[in-house]
Amino acid sequence: MDERVREHAELLVDWSARVEPGDDVVVSVAEDAHELGVAVAEALGERGATVTPLYGSAELSRAYLKGAEAADGEDGPEFDDDPAVDRAIFDAADVYLRIGGGRNTTATADVSSETRQAYAKARQAVREARMDTDWVSTVHPTRSLAQQAGMAYEEYREFVYDAVLRDWEALADEMARMKTVLDEGDEVRIVTERDGAPDTDVRMSIAGRTAVNSAASVAYDSHNLPSGEVFTAPYDTEGTAFFDVPMTIDATRVRDVRLVFEGGEVVDFAAGAGEDALASVLDTDPGARRLGELGIGMNRGIDRFTDSILFDEKMGDTVHLAVGRAYDACLPDGESGNDSAVHVDMITDVQRDSRLEVDGEVVQRNGVFRWEEGFEA
Amino acid sequence: MDERVREHAELLVDWSARVEPGDDVVVSVAEDAHELGVAVAEALGERGATVTPLYGSAELSRAYLKGAEAADGEDGPEFDDDPAVDRAIFDAADVYLRIGGGRNTTATADVSSETRQAYAKARQAVREARMDTDWVSTVHPTRSLAQQAGMAYEEYREFVYDAVLRDWEALADEMARMKTVLDEGDEVRIVTERDGAPDTDVRMSIAGRTAVNSAASVAYDSHNLPSGEVFTAPYDTEGTAFFDVPMTIDATRVRDVRLVFEGGEVVDFAAGAGEDALASVLDTDPGARRLGELGIGMNRGIDRFTDSILFDEKMGDTVHLAVGRAYDACLPDGESGNDSAVHVDMITDVQRDSRLEVDGEVVQRNGVFRWEEGFEA
Repeated sequence: MDERVREHAELLVDWSARVEPGDDVVVSVAEDAHELGVAVAEALGERGATVTPLYGSAELSRAYLKGAEAADGEDGPEFDDDPAVDRAIFDAADVYLRIGGGRNTTATADVSSETRQAYAKARQAVREARMDTDWVSTVHPTRSLAQQAGMAYEEYREFVYDAVLRDWEALADEMARMKTVLDEGDEVRIVTERDGAPDTDVRMSIAGRTAVNSAASVAYDSHNLPSGEVFTAPYDTEGTAFFDVPMTIDATRVRDVRLVFEGGEVVDFAAGAGEDALASVLDTDPGARRLGELGIGMNRGIDRFTDSILFDEKMGDTVHLAVGRAYDACLPDGESGNDSAVHVDMITDVQRDSRLEVDGEVVQRNGVFRWEEGFEA
Repeated sequence: MDERVREHAELLVDWSARVEPGDDVVVSVAEDAHELGVAVAEALGERGATVTPLYGSAELSRAYLKGAEAADGEDGPEFDDDPAVDRAIFDAADVYLRIGGGRNTTATADVSSETRQAYAKARQAVREARMDTDWVSTVHPTRSLAQQAGMAYEEYREFVYDAVLRDWEALADEMARMKTVLDEGDEVRIVTERDGAPDTDVRMSIAGRTAVNSAASVAYDSHNLPSGEVFTAPYDTEGTAFFDVPMTIDATRVRDVRLVFEGGEVVDFAAGAGEDALASVLDTDPGARRLGELGIGMNRGIDRFTDSILFDEKMGDTVHLAVGRAYDACLPDGESGNDSAVHVDMITDVQRDSRLEVDGEVVQRNGVFRWEEGFEA
């Protein structure tokens, strides 16, 4: 076994999930994630935890949903809204580790959106029970994910391990600086230029909000490995934002999105491609036109976009805004932020011709933070 | 998908497990059993059941056990004897479907027997909860199982589907005749000859015992697909039995076993190969020297031995005896039969030079039952 698979497993178990002896750990293993699943099981055996492996197969899910579609009448399939076994699993689990890495990222493409929605609705209680565990999501590099990234398999493996096998303690310390800036600040402004003219110029309030230092560990309220972003929940957004990083929304390729905000809401929008998919997101509910997240990507182990939000939004020298649902962790205890059924991240590359200001002071210019060498104030 | 995979899945769900709408079904999918897992999920969607797929990976289990071995001291690894998640799964499940078919039948060969025993002991409550579900065990044909059988992959697939895709209703009717004979009889005698001399001549009492018509369905107290045997729990065995079908006991090849019974117990034994493994079985506990099962194989879709007890013991024109634990289903309600930690089946080919008598009347001669054409009384 590649030693990096073992390192990945140990990071996941120790740094990310903080597994303790006696913990009951559920591990979902995707179709081609066997190798990482094996390494994780070995680490859990060493730690004195229990392990229950689930088979996280998208093809199996698709078959189940298609079976339900075929059996049901014109009203579409109905699903048990309190599936006893799955509820029991997550009620009993201390830790849930999700290892992605299937054989086809579009394995469920022919399941109707009505069926998906009905299933997602029926699974809400299971989802909530799962979120109450110390859960962490990661991926094992597979050929399917390499293909989605437009990369050779070996090349993609290097990419994944560069992103995952970081010195997380050191990165957490650096991100703590950014968190302090956001926690103490009241207003963020992002400016990017293209061909000398302003491209993005958007302001938002963050007063009273708490930033999350997302350091790939449940100890930091962070549930992705890799992670490496600092995010908060902005409001009262004004101005225009342009997102130059392509993305996929509901299997539709979307690029060059422009959003115009007035009084905290999107009042106009455009996209170079996939505008219908974007419109459908923004029309989901009233909260879908307001921002739920401002995130600062700080993982410099990620050096390219791979059409996977797990990696893209954490890339160093990027900023992302999400329309839709805000994370409770950014709000004062007991309060909730912007509410919506969606949360769609859109990313801007800020490596050049750009600046990030907090309360009028430049915090990052052309991808260089003010505590880094080469920063121009 | 091969249409036979779908037929296998439908037999498993409908005939074997009798899945009803609303049932909570747990499906364990071995490493190379993906295709049958997918077909089963589709059938469960059609039936309106829920599905929870577990990953039944022997390599993952081995890694977990080796991890526990590496972590623990000289006393060997300790395991949680009430693993919360696994208990919760089987307490909540209505049906458990185990689909075998890994990549290496010796995947756990380097786990010490102390570790195996410690783990098996800790899992007793989980095992009991699992046995309380409507459970069925089957296999998807894989290259690893083909190799164990000494067959080409395509050849092995034909073999498996010939064994599994039977007219189970018709076979259940035929086996009901055998069950009636055994239920009404008091004594069974098995005689085989080799080179004109008696080879096996063994008598056992079955008075007061009830035979199981093992027709591959929980509706028949039968939990294997394929099945196709009628079995009961004999006692007071006298005589000599010779088993000409090779088998594997604890990874040791054992062949040409001879057992001599007096007063219901094995008083002498020999084997052409693997005698030590046989001795170790017989020395497990006092019950390991008494019979727990007499089984009559009646599945004529199985036409060769493949070193897999799931198939071998059901082969038409074979008889098997097991030393060790008896099945409660063969005893009057509330009573238990022979008790032992082991249950090891040994098989005799009765296709020629053989007869099976019940209370002095020949029921089967040279592989032909008395209700079949060509029977010589």
